[in-house]
Amino acid sequence: MRLSRLHPRYESLRIRDKLVKGFKEGIVVEHGLLAHGRGEAFDYLLGERTQDFALEAIKASVASLLLSNYPLISVNGNFAALCSRDIVRLSKLIKAKIEVNLFHRTLEREKKIEALLIKQGAKEVLGVGERAKAKIEGIASKRAKVDPEGILKANTILLALEDGDRTEALRKLGKRIIAIDINPLSRTAKMANITIVDNCVRALPLMVKQAKVMKTFDKGELREILKNFNNEKNLSRALKFISFRLRNLERDSWIA
Amino acid sequence: MRLSRLHPRYESLRIRDKLVKGFKEGIVVEHGLLAHGRGEAFDYLLGERTQDFALEAIKASVASLLLSNYPLISVNGNFAALCSRDIVRLSKLIKAKIEVNLFHRTLEREKKIEALLIKQGAKEVLGVGERAKAKIEGIASKRAKVDPEGILKANTILLALEDGDRTEALRKLGKRIIAIDINPLSRTAKMANITIVDNCVRALPLMVKQAKVMKTFDKGELREILKNFNNEKNLSRALKFISFRLRNLERDSWIA
Repeated sequence: MRLSRLHPRYESLRIRDKLVKGFKEGIVVEHGLLAHGRGEAFDYLLGERTQDFALEAIKASVASLLLSNYPLISVNGNFAALCSRDIVRLSKLIKAKIEVNLFHRTLEREKKIEALLIKQGAKEVLGVGERAKAKIEGIASKRAKVDPEGILKANTILLALEDGDRTEALRKLGKRIIAIDINPLSRTAKMANITIVDNCVRALPLMVKQAKVMKTFDKGELREILKNFNNEKNLSRALKFISFRLRNLERDSWIA
Repeated sequence: MRLSRLHPRYESLRIRDKLVKGFKEGIVVEHGLLAHGRGEAFDYLLGERTQDFALEAIKASVASLLLSNYPLISVNGNFAALCSRDIVRLSKLIKAKIEVNLFHRTLEREKKIEALLIKQGAKEVLGVGERAKAKIEGIASKRAKVDPEGILKANTILLALEDGDRTEALRKLGKRIIAIDINPLSRTAKMANITIVDNCVRALPLMVKQAKVMKTFDKGELREILKNFNNEKNLSRALKFISFRLRNLERDSWIA
């Protein structure tokens, strides 16, 4: 069934198809499809657009990543399936490492995601197979595994669609966390130093765009941007926006 | 990984596991997992409880089904995976037919769902294979197929997790639609005569409970219950509830 561009939810359905494709290729797992569905509901509530509070968080995030001397992008299945090209682009602009970090870890999936990122131009992908030989405290089972040259060493970590307990564990290790999370109520959203309340499909290209501009800024300017950003206030704006929109949505239609 | 009952989202994760099981058994499709995820987000916003507006809609629904001389329960993959036992129980109490009606129709899935319902005690399941030889207007492809002895003939249809265009087509045929839809903004929610804004996993057992009591009522009492119910107002209450909750959720936690 070919999807018409005129369909009121064309963009959302196109993203969903990308994810189902990732599922069929073994990059995304069942629980990733469910999580994406939850994200779709929040994206609808956000109006399926990057709102001003998200753009401010994006600018602060890029400033923070450019100021870091060991930035890293943590990549899971859904993030890879949706954003591999921009993950690689951004990593080059901000000189960040890339690490594969899966909730449901199998060597096969790690390798598939590595291959996808390398196809998009990544020089090196951390966290695959034997490389993930360190562990982070407070996390059960295989999910604790990280690369000693990657997450364990990094000081600023960009992650997307991450579960709350891992975000919490990383914060306890003293990492600076930048999270792309479309649910402003999630534990990850609340735990992160900077939370970008947006769909990663829209946020990543904007981060790439900002990074191109902001990498010419001097450190003083970057620090100023960061200083003026308040994550708690930003999250509160996102919640107010959604709540306001809900009260005004009765006339709209949602195609279930 | 065994799930602890103490986990703050135990119930939600237990339901999700049931659905993933249905997926592995071929009853649920990929898009069903995504749709469920979207539902999870709304259920969280509803507080994962049956709210008073939902209970009122449940009572009106049972009254309407008991008053109908040809009631039917339409069953898709997610509904079957989550509620087969109570679908059969309710069908017996209200003397309703059961019809399998899939968005992504294959004979194999129809038969699996039929087998599941029969295992739960259903005497007859309509809409399987050759039986679904009628078509409803305004719906493309296989999704138009219905049973001439089922949906085509029924005057009151209970459905859950249904897509908007099919609900619309059924309304155009003059059917009375009772929808269980956790998203009060969906087209199905707006199109239905009675919308139960709740998780079907909670709503169905409550419908069974109400049907046991209400089947002793006389027609006058049932008509009175129905007359006092206003679907538009009920949906509006659901929206107000969610919007209010969102503004008060900042202190809660959502485990992503």
